[in-house]
Amino acid sequence: MRFTSEQRLDDGVLEREFTLGEIPGILWTPGSASAPAPLILLGHPGGLHQMYPRLVARARHCAAEGFAAATIELPGSGDRPRSAAAEEARADLRRVLEAGEPVGDEIVDRLVLPLVEKAVPEWRAALDTLLPLPGIGEPVGYAGGVISIGVRLAVVEPRISAALLYAGSFVPRVILEEARQVGIPLQVLLQWDDEWNDRQMALDLFDAFGTREKTLHANMGGHTGVPQFEGDDGNRFFVRHLK
Amino acid sequence: MRFTSEQRLDDGVLEREFTLGEIPGILWTPGSASAPAPLILLGHPGGLHQMYPRLVARARHCAAEGFAAATIELPGSGDRPRSAAAEEARADLRRVLEAGEPVGDEIVDRLVLPLVEKAVPEWRAALDTLLPLPGIGEPVGYAGGVISIGVRLAVVEPRISAALLYAGSFVPRVILEEARQVGIPLQVLLQWDDEWNDRQMALDLFDAFGTREKTLHANMGGHTGVPQFEGDDGNRFFVRHLK
Repeated sequence: MRFTSEQRLDDGVLEREFTLGEIPGILWTPGSASAPAPLILLGHPGGLHQMYPRLVARARHCAAEGFAAATIELPGSGDRPRSAAAEEARADLRRVLEAGEPVGDEIVDRLVLPLVEKAVPEWRAALDTLLPLPGIGEPVGYAGGVISIGVRLAVVEPRISAALLYAGSFVPRVILEEARQVGIPLQVLLQWDDEWNDRQMALDLFDAFGTREKTLHANMGGHTGVPQFEGDDGNRFFVRHLK
Repeated sequence: MRFTSEQRLDDGVLEREFTLGEIPGILWTPGSASAPAPLILLGHPGGLHQMYPRLVARARHCAAEGFAAATIELPGSGDRPRSAAAEEARADLRRVLEAGEPVGDEIVDRLVLPLVEKAVPEWRAALDTLLPLPGIGEPVGYAGGVISIGVRLAVVEPRISAALLYAGSFVPRVILEEARQVGIPLQVLLQWDDEWNDRQMALDLFDAFGTREKTLHANMGGHTGVPQFEGDDGNRFFVRHLK
């Protein structure tokens, strides 16, 4: 791992860009902390540059509560090499959506499963690298999309103690089944009128999660319309479970 | 209106029992307040004595945030005269539930609509009486069940500015239609495994509400299993909209 840039934001948060092999990432740590800060992994749909304004806002919000935050680029997004199969699946999805046809399991599987297979080990490798850094420590939380990555991580990564998942993308049936094995506390955000998300699928997924400590927060509006107060609610969720 | 008893609770909250004509009620006001305290009406399924422990806990929670709280007995509950028709509807419902049969619209209408018709004017009369008291003022919130009473109040009572509704009872179709007219901010609590509540009906009701500012909080567990942190979330909801 190599830090490639470092800047102190106006609220004292230290922002460091890094690369982990070929994978770019960003680490944010609170300006002042007496104990190691629990780390929250910030999930996103891919494209660190476009996502940066939303990610840094969430990271600052985390830091205000004493949490560190980190994110990495997804396979096939941003400056990382494209996957021909993923591009084809995305094009097929676009075609189906534009035709107003129902999105079949086969497209969802092709679109999401290879991404999960590749991304999850990368997030785990990032944890291996980030957790030994001074000022950062367990427990770890995961917050954001892609929800299928969050589900798989919650199942396979024992260092993750709580997850705040954004129900905002297609979920393969395999992942729906895996959800039954999730045993950690969850908070699930659902945008009721999400143009990219099947509401019933999201409710089925929420129902499927095996954990007894799960809360669904549904709000009005589209994919990017999550109300600001959900940021505070998310912090309180992590304070309950990571502190 | 006549106050029948008065006691100061250990956290300084003043608890006063009152009667409004034949209707018993309880008013809680914060120990210290510089400005008139916004009033939160505490809805419940009827039976002030049995409900008292939960109501006083919610009232103290409200008072800690600077809100006054008040509740009145429902028609046909507690020491108030029974309605033969309501008792019959309740017996019919019990029979249907015990037989494991689906609960028909006709029983729900007979059970809930006369209660709404009678209770809503009583809650409004309570507002007329309580709001002029020193230390209490608008805006007003409504928090609790019976959800059909909350929906009707939200539609007809302009002094109510926000409502925290507990989806935990059968909802007549008429009320589902009225929900479209609700324009105030709502937070809706849904117990995912509520033994008294049809989950799909609750989701349909949430979908039907006309307001753009509505949030659904679904948690695991049965009717009385609402997690403690929802009390804090409810307070923050009212702080956003009543202060």
